[in-house]
Amino acid sequence: MSREGQPAFSAPVNVEDVERIAAARLPRAALDYYRSGAGEEYTLRNNREAFRRLRIRPRVLRDVSIRDLSTVALGKRVAVPFGIAPTAMHCMAHPDGEVASARAAEKIGAVFILSTLSTRSLEEVAEAAPKATKWFQLYIYKNRNITEDLVRRAERLGYKALVLTVDAPLFGIRWADARNKFHLPPHLKLANFTGPAEADGVRERTTKGSQLQAYVTDLFDQTLTWDALTWLKSITKLPIILKGILTKEDVEEAINHNVAGVMVSNHGARQVDGFPATIEALPEIVKAVCGRCEVFMDGGVTQGTDVFKALALGAKMVFIGRPVLWGLAYDGEEGAKTVLEIIRHEFDFTLALTGCSSIAGIEKEMVVPASFYSLL
Amino acid sequence: MSREGQPAFSAPVNVEDVERIAAARLPRAALDYYRSGAGEEYTLRNNREAFRRLRIRPRVLRDVSIRDLSTVALGKRVAVPFGIAPTAMHCMAHPDGEVASARAAEKIGAVFILSTLSTRSLEEVAEAAPKATKWFQLYIYKNRNITEDLVRRAERLGYKALVLTVDAPLFGIRWADARNKFHLPPHLKLANFTGPAEADGVRERTTKGSQLQAYVTDLFDQTLTWDALTWLKSITKLPIILKGILTKEDVEEAINHNVAGVMVSNHGARQVDGFPATIEALPEIVKAVCGRCEVFMDGGVTQGTDVFKALALGAKMVFIGRPVLWGLAYDGEEGAKTVLEIIRHEFDFTLALTGCSSIAGIEKEMVVPASFYSLL
Amino acid sequence: MSREGQPAFSAPVNVEDVERIAAARLPRAALDYYRSGAGEEYTLRNNREAFRRLRIRPRVLRDVSIRDLSTVALGKRVAVPFGIAPTAMHCMAHPDGEVASARAAEKIGAVFILSTLSTRSLEEVAEAAPKATKWFQLYIYKNRNITEDLVRRAERLGYKALVLTVDAPLFGIRWADARNKFHLPPHLKLANFTGPAEADGVRERTTKGSQLQAYVTDLFDQTLTWDALTWLKSITKLPIILKGILTKEDVEEAINHNVAGVMVSNHGARQVDGFPATIEALPEIVKAVCGRCEVFMDGGVTQGTDVFKALALGAKMVFIGRPVLWGLAYDGEEGAKTVLEIIRHEFDFTLALTGCSSIAGIEKEMVVPASFYSLL
Amino acid sequence: MSREGQPAFSAPVNVEDVERIAAARLPRAALDYYRSGAGEEYTLRNNREAFRRLRIRPRVLRDVSIRDLSTVALGKRVAVPFGIAPTAMHCMAHPDGEVASARAAEKIGAVFILSTLSTRSLEEVAEAAPKATKWFQLYIYKNRNITEDLVRRAERLGYKALVLTVDAPLFGIRWADARNKFHLPPHLKLANFTGPAEADGVRERTTKGSQLQAYVTDLFDQTLTWDALTWLKSITKLPIILKGILTKEDVEEAINHNVAGVMVSNHGARQVDGFPATIEALPEIVKAVCGRCEVFMDGGVTQGTDVFKALALGAKMVFIGRPVLWGLAYDGEEGAKTVLEIIRHEFDFTLALTGCSSIAGIEKEMVVPASFYSLL
Repeated sequence: MSREGQPAFSAPVNVEDVERIAAARLPRAALDYYRSGAGEEYTLRNNREAFRRLRIRPRVLRDVSIRDLSTVALGKRVAVPFGIAPTAMHCMAHPDGEVASARAAEKIGAVFILSTLSTRSLEEVAEAAPKATKWFQLYIYKNRNITEDLVRRAERLGYKALVLTVDAPLFGIRWADARNKFHLPPHLKLANFTGPAEADGVRERTTKGSQLQAYVTDLFDQTLTWDALTWLKSITKLPIILKGILTKEDVEEAINHNVAGVMVSNHGARQVDGFPATIEALPEIVKAVCGRCEVFMDGGVTQGTDVFKALALGAKMVFIGRPVLWGLAYDGEEGAKTVLEIIRHEFDFTLALTGCSSIAGIEKEMVVPASFYSLL
Repeated sequence: MSREGQPAFSAPVNVEDVERIAAARLPRAALDYYRSGAGEEYTLRNNREAFRRLRIRPRVLRDVSIRDLSTVALGKRVAVPFGIAPTAMHCMAHPDGEVASARAAEKIGAVFILSTLSTRSLEEVAEAAPKATKWFQLYIYKNRNITEDLVRRAERLGYKALVLTVDAPLFGIRWADARNKFHLPPHLKLANFTGPAEADGVRERTTKGSQLQAYVTDLFDQTLTWDALTWLKSITKLPIILKGILTKEDVEEAINHNVAGVMVSNHGARQVDGFPATIEALPEIVKAVCGRCEVFMDGGVTQGTDVFKALALGAKMVFIGRPVLWGLAYDGEEGAKTVLEIIRHEFDFTLALTGCSSIAGIEKEMVVPASFYSLL
Repeated sequence: MSREGQPAFSAPVNVEDVERIAAARLPRAALDYYRSGAGEEYTLRNNREAFRRLRIRPRVLRDVSIRDLSTVALGKRVAVPFGIAPTAMHCMAHPDGEVASARAAEKIGAVFILSTLSTRSLEEVAEAAPKATKWFQLYIYKNRNITEDLVRRAERLGYKALVLTVDAPLFGIRWADARNKFHLPPHLKLANFTGPAEADGVRERTTKGSQLQAYVTDLFDQTLTWDALTWLKSITKLPIILKGILTKEDVEEAINHNVAGVMVSNHGARQVDGFPATIEALPEIVKAVCGRCEVFMDGGVTQGTDVFKALALGAKMVFIGRPVLWGLAYDGEEGAKTVLEIIRHEFDFTLALTGCSSIAGIEKEMVVPASFYSLL
Repeated sequence: MSREGQPAFSAPVNVEDVERIAAARLPRAALDYYRSGAGEEYTLRNNREAFRRLRIRPRVLRDVSIRDLSTVALGKRVAVPFGIAPTAMHCMAHPDGEVASARAAEKIGAVFILSTLSTRSLEEVAEAAPKATKWFQLYIYKNRNITEDLVRRAERLGYKALVLTVDAPLFGIRWADARNKFHLPPHLKLANFTGPAEADGVRERTTKGSQLQAYVTDLFDQTLTWDALTWLKSITKLPIILKGILTKEDVEEAINHNVAGVMVSNHGARQVDGFPATIEALPEIVKAVCGRCEVFMDGGVTQGTDVFKALALGAKMVFIGRPVLWGLAYDGEEGAKTVLEIIRHEFDFTLALTGCSSIAGIEKEMVVPASFYSLL
């Protein structure tokens, strides 16, 4: 259906509405690429459902007339405790791609994390959203020069942190992509690369499975160990956040390598079906970190109450992936902003109705597992 | 469909039947307003389902030929241990509105709680149901004169208690209302107010969301703290019940302020999706109160066994909200009475079949979580 | 549909098949009467589903070439460890009624319990199935002469035990019956009574609800206490089994009154929705009895594995209610026998495949809750 | 539908796809025979679902560029830690039957276990797949000469182990087979037998139920005890694996009889509905074995993550039953190989994405029950 001929959707009142509209508009392959998770998508569903198994215990009769939604992450105050997670290839959702989503983040005052696999370059995004707090997500390529080039550009362009993805030596098996033989549409490109090696990376090379997976397999460094972190720290002063930490054991390693933060993530449930929901894993990580670095999380956040729950369980900030893509598909920059506004509005009301006038007012005891009640 | 042309429903045998009939008759916006809960309505469903996860352990061979269903609440004997919860704007369900529901309560001998946001005034209700035990639900307005005026009228008209709602500095986000741009139908009014400020309150002021929410946001006092309770106690001798308590922490505050009772309530699951079901939260509150004041509850009560379960877990009395509205929509005062009669009949049989001849006979051990059995 | 015109059902391979056939043949009111449980029928479903939550732990490499299915109950050896539970008015299912079901029991060697509210008399059943082990289920009427007359006839006719129902001072609220205004079809009668008082009992006396419920309310003694048991023991030497025990507290009372046995029963989930499934309650009762009397159970047994599970958890014998009625509706005596044969066959295979060659070989450790595994 | 006229299925991307294609192609009776489990098939579903209740805890930043999927079982290195479970009568799925599946196993380097009840003989399979690691599954016949003959042939033909099935003195009650009066199609034969006694075994002998069940009942030795194992060990030097162990109690017996291994199996959920899922039972067995013999398992394995989970819980190797049959039905040897390749590919990615470069890298802590998280 052409965008001209699209039906008159009524204004979305929640993120699910935006998703429905996006699902009706996006080409099948793009929708599937964004939407799908690994295997049977148990973890994909669980990322959302695990939030539902938590209960919020509200306090009453507290002055909530003025509410401060801001927080401090990596030493910098930001307007809201949620940001945009790094997801690949926003231009499949809207021609403006990452430029639109970064601008939406800028308007809300949310942190924007640009993906290495973006369809708008580091430079375009930096220029479009100069006042946004921007972080850059990094993959480490077999050819370390490629990585170092990305780091140098991020530094120069004012990106404030590097988010090193550590859970993707390969890309997981996503059945929908395999069926669609998913590949980046020919008119789009991975905008951060210009050299021939990288251009090759997205060309059709196999007849089976997703071409992006082949790209990753060919170009990413699967020999990566914790030494890579030592190397990365040796070439940059930017704070480093490890994205994809799910166990307390890896927290110890991360702390030993002096990271600025860890992001509890299962890569949008796209790597291995059976990984825990991120909100399930968060308490283990928070407990293990024990204040020694900052803890972020992404995965399954679609409502303001999800943000509240993650913060009560110890996250400093949460990141939102797919919903922003649905927003882009719905209405470009405006659509992405709508998504962030909906979540901000819901989070604001959750604060008010739990007796919190600021993030600092969120108490640990305010979020408990459902079993808290059945065991009484 | 006009009421004349309505299909011949057979007589309802349970509250669900009444709800079905009401759902077929009510205009969409009114039905949605009454029926909806916050967010995805997980808590709305859980309010009912949590009752189902409890088991009743009956005793046998006890004389149950004569059963006394009465109880004593706030020092006054009432015929049944359940009453009508305060819900807004009964005239949307039936032209007689709160007058009809108060009369139904009077005939059954059930406590009636009138909402501040009623479509029949304190005076009309007092005149219509002089013998009913009536309590008045109170919101505290930014303009304390409004509140004080309500209190004075309640005292003068013989309302026996004030039920102070403490969980609504704002009204929660209810998606159905947002879609419907819900507002009070033009031919109805909030009957307790005559001044221009209040009339303004229900006028369309925004193009987004529910107008009632705007009313609340504009007029209710969001700076409210426990001091408000001190103030309220200073202007009235009526016993005060705090409605909307869900945590043991707030019980301590309530007891320190010498309240007559607390009502475990999540505002009909209309504030934040993710709050516990009230029957889940009840044991925590009962334990914390430890006999120092009376404990009431509302939320999800649709059957006589629900009343029994709440009482066994320590509630003095339970309150019924939506089912009474379904009764009004079904058949006005008669319909509301039918609902109360159904629940009374079911509760009476539950007493008989558990070996109880009175409320006092309900033992703590008679209601257990399902896990009581799976852990044997 | 006339029985002549019925579709050619293929031979049933399990009890569910028989139920399906019966449901297609029985008049709606009779089907509903047999099938329904109290309230929302949560307990009705749970009676079956609770069996599913148990796991069977089989032993291997034991000689199971010859299997002895017999057991000893009340000092008498019976061919199978299951019998026919007392259910009312078998003639609604098939003209031969209790005569047919008793004969089926006789052929299998199963205990048959005749209901007081039968449509074939104590005498007819005794004559039709002289070799069956027959027990008689007793209600205590306000008029004790009625009860004493029943006891005398049971003694004289060779019934071997009295099964005193203690969970029915009233009959529970079954919505389907209330909708159908259920009453015994005019051509049938409660066959154990001939006096005018009893004939009155089944006449239409109310316009609301089930007439059988009115019968019970009018004629049964709701003042009954444990003294009634003392009285009953004073007039008969027959062993007495208390049917309807669900708590350890009542076990103590029962033991103090020297009963021969207790039957864990929730009256087919027909009294109060929310009572535990009988297989849930069984371990509590077995533990409390601690060998001091025999423990029986009914409720939700539809497969041979259910029998096995109940026996492993400590039941001496289990009783089957509705499935026998489905069998009667399917094919009279043959149909009832088919049901018993199916369950015997399934139970026999369960024995063989768990390494048991007799009831005595069933070990406690062979049945565990599902949580046994998730907690490993 | 003829194979010529079959619809153009797209290439399967997972085992479920293969199952769907097979289900569309197989004759109903064969499909039902392969697919069905005992009773209500609760255990059949649970065999799969219990895997879903486990969570995988991945480690990051480990060199996974080279992954070794091989393991050592019974002292022999095999290329992958999964094999083909013994299932009966492969020729119903494809004319090449066990020859095709053995060849698929050979190509992948997976262990192949031939069933006694195969439609291709020990000899045909040995000749067709000379390089495959082949084990032979054994039933013990009443006539021990039959068994001894099978053992001698297995030894002579290079089968490396005997897998003695100990959970099938009878075949379980499978309702679909009973409805279908399942029997081996007339053009097929149990290929390991040539004598008249065996030929008789598959002839129609009853009009009720599955003929294969009658075969088993007539010919298998139901008096079998642990002494049979002593006998078997006395006639062969081949290592013996006991298949069908589900309890720690039986582990002790097995160890006392010096078996080389035990296989946790519920016979594909075909014996008694209510047996634990095999992945549920595995930890109990592993703990009891405590390294004293090798532990294998089958049941519900359809994905690479299932293999990973079983290995983390202590299985040396897992075996795949029905999926191989679906592969045969889909495309003979190629189809069976496709199934094994899919699982190998998924398992390989699971290794990479959990930080394991070999089987030895799989740590116990990497797989936990879901409750691990809800209890945090």
